[in-house]
Amino acid sequence: MKTILFFLLISFCLVNAAELETLNLMPVPESVQLQRGKFILTNDLKISIENYNGKRLDKAAARFMHRLGGRTGMFFSQDFHLDKSKISGANLLIDVKREGKLELGENESYQLSVTENKIKLTAETDLGALHGLETLLQLLDADTSYYFPAVEITDQPRFQWRGLLIDVCRHFQPVEVIKRNLDAMAAVKMNVFHWHLTEDQGFRVECKTYPKLHEMGSDGNYFTHEQIKDIVDYAADRGIRVMPEFDLPGHATTWLVAYPELASAPGPYNIERNWGIFDPTFDPTNDETYKFLEAFFKEMATLFPDAYWHIGGDENKGHQWDANAKIQEFMKKNDLKDNHDLQNYFNLKLEKILDKLGKTMVGWYTDKQPVLSKKYIIQSWKGRESLYESARNGYRCLLSHGFYIDLIQPTSYHYANDPIPPDSILRDEVKKRILGGEATMWAEFVGPETIDSRIWPRTAAIAERLWSPGHINDMDDLFRRLDVTSFRFEELGLTHIKNYDMMLRRLANNTNIDALKNFVNVIEPLYTYSRDHPHVFKSYYPLTRVVDAAQPDPPVVREFDSLVKDYLADKTNSGDKLKAIVGWLKLWKANHELLNVTIKKSPVLNEIATLSEDLAKCAGIGLEALNYIKTNENPDAGWIEEKLETLKQARVPSGETELLIVDSIESLVKAIQQ
Amino acid sequence: MKTILFFLLISFCLVNAAELETLNLMPVPESVQLQRGKFILTNDLKISIENYNGKRLDKAAARFMHRLGGRTGMFFSQDFHLDKSKISGANLLIDVKREGKLELGENESYQLSVTENKIKLTAETDLGALHGLETLLQLLDADTSYYFPAVEITDQPRFQWRGLLIDVCRHFQPVEVIKRNLDAMAAVKMNVFHWHLTEDQGFRVECKTYPKLHEMGSDGNYFTHEQIKDIVDYAADRGIRVMPEFDLPGHATTWLVAYPELASAPGPYNIERNWGIFDPTFDPTNDETYKFLEAFFKEMATLFPDAYWHIGGDENKGHQWDANAKIQEFMKKNDLKDNHDLQNYFNLKLEKILDKLGKTMVGWYTDKQPVLSKKYIIQSWKGRESLYESARNGYRCLLSHGFYIDLIQPTSYHYANDPIPPDSILRDEVKKRILGGEATMWAEFVGPETIDSRIWPRTAAIAERLWSPGHINDMDDLFRRLDVTSFRFEELGLTHIKNYDMMLRRLANNTNIDALKNFVNVIEPLYTYSRDHPHVFKSYYPLTRVVDAAQPDPPVVREFDSLVKDYLADKTNSGDKLKAIVGWLKLWKANHELLNVTIKKSPVLNEIATLSEDLAKCAGIGLEALNYIKTNENPDAGWIEEKLETLKQARVPSGETELLIVDSIESLVKAIQQ
Repeated sequence: MKTILFFLLISFCLVNAAELETLNLMPVPESVQLQRGKFILTNDLKISIENYNGKRLDKAAARFMHRLGGRTGMFFSQDFHLDKSKISGANLLIDVKREGKLELGENESYQLSVTENKIKLTAETDLGALHGLETLLQLLDADTSYYFPAVEITDQPRFQWRGLLIDVCRHFQPVEVIKRNLDAMAAVKMNVFHWHLTEDQGFRVECKTYPKLHEMGSDGNYFTHEQIKDIVDYAADRGIRVMPEFDLPGHATTWLVAYPELASAPGPYNIERNWGIFDPTFDPTNDETYKFLEAFFKEMATLFPDAYWHIGGDENKGHQWDANAKIQEFMKKNDLKDNHDLQNYFNLKLEKILDKLGKTMVGWYTDKQPVLSKKYIIQSWKGRESLYESARNGYRCLLSHGFYIDLIQPTSYHYANDPIPPDSILRDEVKKRILGGEATMWAEFVGPETIDSRIWPRTAAIAERLWSPGHINDMDDLFRRLDVTSFRFEELGLTHIKNYDMMLRRLANNTNIDALKNFVNVIEPLYTYSRDHPHVFKSYYPLTRVVDAAQPDPPVVREFDSLVKDYLADKTNSGDKLKAIVGWLKLWKANHELLNVTIKKSPVLNEIATLSEDLAKCAGIGLEALNYIKTNENPDAGWIEEKLETLKQARVPSGETELLIVDSIESLVKAIQQ
Repeated sequence: MKTILFFLLISFCLVNAAELETLNLMPVPESVQLQRGKFILTNDLKISIENYNGKRLDKAAARFMHRLGGRTGMFFSQDFHLDKSKISGANLLIDVKREGKLELGENESYQLSVTENKIKLTAETDLGALHGLETLLQLLDADTSYYFPAVEITDQPRFQWRGLLIDVCRHFQPVEVIKRNLDAMAAVKMNVFHWHLTEDQGFRVECKTYPKLHEMGSDGNYFTHEQIKDIVDYAADRGIRVMPEFDLPGHATTWLVAYPELASAPGPYNIERNWGIFDPTFDPTNDETYKFLEAFFKEMATLFPDAYWHIGGDENKGHQWDANAKIQEFMKKNDLKDNHDLQNYFNLKLEKILDKLGKTMVGWYTDKQPVLSKKYIIQSWKGRESLYESARNGYRCLLSHGFYIDLIQPTSYHYANDPIPPDSILRDEVKKRILGGEATMWAEFVGPETIDSRIWPRTAAIAERLWSPGHINDMDDLFRRLDVTSFRFEELGLTHIKNYDMMLRRLANNTNIDALKNFVNVIEPLYTYSRDHPHVFKSYYPLTRVVDAAQPDPPVVREFDSLVKDYLADKTNSGDKLKAIVGWLKLWKANHELLNVTIKKSPVLNEIATLSEDLAKCAGIGLEALNYIKTNENPDAGWIEEKLETLKQARVPSGETELLIVDSIESLVKAIQQ
């Protein structure tokens, strides 16, 4: 009776229990029951796969062994390449009932049991087993040996659609970028790669039916059929569906470079080199448009086996439609009141084409709800209200508003962005239509060198939001686990950590980077929509400046802010925290003089010189403020106002970056005389 | 008259002139004449290409702009994608006479003239212009602005064959590894990528004629036709020829996995998982062997346009031949005295096949000189004498002995390995047959994560040896330039620097890596042939241990050794050097205690615990010895012997690595009482 009660308690409030805070699981499983004891890792680790064994599981087991060997340096006796069924003496048993289908709503659950002598991973499908292997890898720990703690885990996803969009158009991202990000997605149990393949700035797929599309629209940067198949297979091996997006009827410049006759205004068109929303739009009144798109889709359908197909559909302002008399006439004749109606007409045509190909259409939310079949899935980027409206109207939908990772917003903001918050008053049938969400990595300001640092680790928090139970929302514990998760991504080839120092070395022209790093650790790129000034950025401009090296939501700032908050909340019992605050402030106060030596040798750093000086000033103010607080002395009249003004000046961005620690220092100044 | 004399002087002793020591050119050009003044870089930099302009040059110019933008953060007004001929107001003029042919002996010379207002790059072929653009990038410098120093450069290679072999078989290296290494090759003006594609451990090309070859022999890791074409094009864009190697008749296990009937002994065969020399060998007496190879070569010839074709031919011990009665009978009947004769018989057959395909055969030196047509090129890995013997016998040849970069030998050793040393007594016609050389990256102990650190920067020194005039051999100046060159490789995506910290982070399980780095900075992986003990290494064992993170020829050791040498040579005037030596020794003496904290949490580090302790002991001895030297005191009787014994113990390798600073500390001990 006692045991049962204990078990119930554990499985209820489990993930907040102190003992679980030693685990680094991300996303947090549905239920975790930590036990006494551990499974000590030796070279005799042997995997056996029982019942169903397909290629996907076999390869996943080989990758598991490879990663485990990579972390531990151990020479496992089991040959990775052997058939893993019927291994004698196996101590890691994987028991799977059947092959999982890469379909929406497939069973992804698993149970993992680690005891001292045996590890057992059970799942309905191999997809569930893949998730279980990732969990097991996250459990790896060490004292004098490497071990897995004894544990019982039952797990399944909260949402069935957990996606990441990567825009490979505005800046091209080659195969290896996609692959390493698929590996990271799998590591945090995401299951949809949304591949944004066409844009005003680049047409990124090889088209054999209309080769002029990639030949004229890509500057030579596109994915071949073979590469697409390779990536789709690679994703499938990791339990990830691949949904292509061909953005229509707007965002279409590069299609029209090759086929201007399909546009709503006469060409010629050139590949767009700027960012923004542009006019070139398909002519929805031209029958050739549909013949062309049908042939194109037919070819693409041979490459993308997924049942879902994204047609974009956003940000078509209809300028070309407004200015085209023939189109205006067509609208009148067909009783299409406005451009929204015309686009709906266009979408209905696309829906028919896709129907024939067995594909379900997905599109971005536009200003109004569509009039399409209820199979249609709407992806919301306009806020949760539009999401709920779509769901109430009977459409299935995906949340992307709040998951725009390109915008450089804090992890905490994304983490709190629950598609169905605990207090939701939606009816159950409406809730069911909310399939999940997608993080979106738009690529105006990222290249292959920086994209990982914009996606990770923040997207891991989004992955957890979409997988774990809704009550998992302890922000401190999130950050603890996020640091470990971020570090572990490096074994998958992600570059978000290692490219930081590399970029700083380049900026410092291979001189000592310590001072530069101290500075860049406390700045952040501007919120993206504010970034494209004063330059009108062109697609071939460099992405190697300080703003590109700077990281979203930098950990040092998180640490400092939290120290200040804790100290101010309880000054008398925060001696250690005060010491740490003073340590940071002294470092920053002295930093500008050091950094200035580097700046003088490296003109690319000129743009942050004032901000570096501001950091020193702010730190100085912080130290003075602390002194007043500690001594309970009052500063001279006007001191506070003067310093607040200096802090205000320090908020002015420079080099498209901003200083982040100003708020905390301001709170120190304001804490004087309390 | 004076000017002419000055010019003659300059062009003679030029590269040793003090003023040139500010330049970071690698390889050093044939002639450099530094001028007063500089070309200041502004956003108005505009390239124009005069006379011949092909796609290769146009793409190279775009890459040049991209790299320049990447370093400077500048927003150049010229659109990279524009046609660069007939740009008005251009200030960087590229004047090329004709398209270069990717053939042995093609003109690769160029002249580069930088003045305050104009840069002019002139070359007979676009291949020369590509080299000139790399030189120009190396000239980039900065004070308050970025600039190119005014300079007149005339340059051409000393040897026409400057190659790098990459073994993609023992550990597979994917496309991006090859591409970034091609970029690095181009940056130091190397022009042959020797692609070792088949081995006992892996068959790495897709074969459409005999698909079982890659299906059964590769574990799924092979290059498709499309990928090969892509890489060959990528190389050609950078002026690099691609020579494939299909190793025959030995090193052939993976061919025979699929086609055991072509072997000299009955199968079945499995992909080899160990390193070494193995028996599986084609049957040279079987007509089917030649039919098969002819069809295979014919298919491969559609992928590799280069005129040269490497057939391997090494390390066939002939055990299968000795044991096969049918083969022995054949040898008697055909008057083939020994296995060398039989292999020569085999090679003559291959030569005929390749003749038909218009390919010239290249092979490794075997124990005896071959009896083949004098078109054959011999690649020497057995020392310079065999090279000269081949050349005297009328064969053209390549030096690889002394360029085995996989073996972990010092840069200085490779740099001094001149194929034709200044004191060579070879006749001119024999010298002419020595075409150049190749660095060889065999892949027993490298994966995609570590391969760059084994190739670079040491191979840049080899590139210089093969390009620059023979009298360029100042070792200090080499290392000064090598550090910059190595840093600059990072912009090409090379990982040799950034993966170092990444690997240390993994070894330290994401704890502070300072102490670990202090230690790994002064060790080196064992000379490779000594490394495969005590383990018999298997191909799927991890390459993530300390030995894999450790770098060949680590800079810290170079610095320390040089400090000690200088100090002992002139003790009275080396105060600064003494201080630096003491600084290092104190750091190392204290390091073990810190590192031990990490070791205790990370079992993968256990294998270097004793070596870390040894480092502390050695450093302690060094400090004591310095004290005796400074005070002119004599240590107690037996002290020196005891310490020398401790140092001897510290030479014992651990974790397949060895401590490098022992020699210098021993020299300090031996300097007592002098």
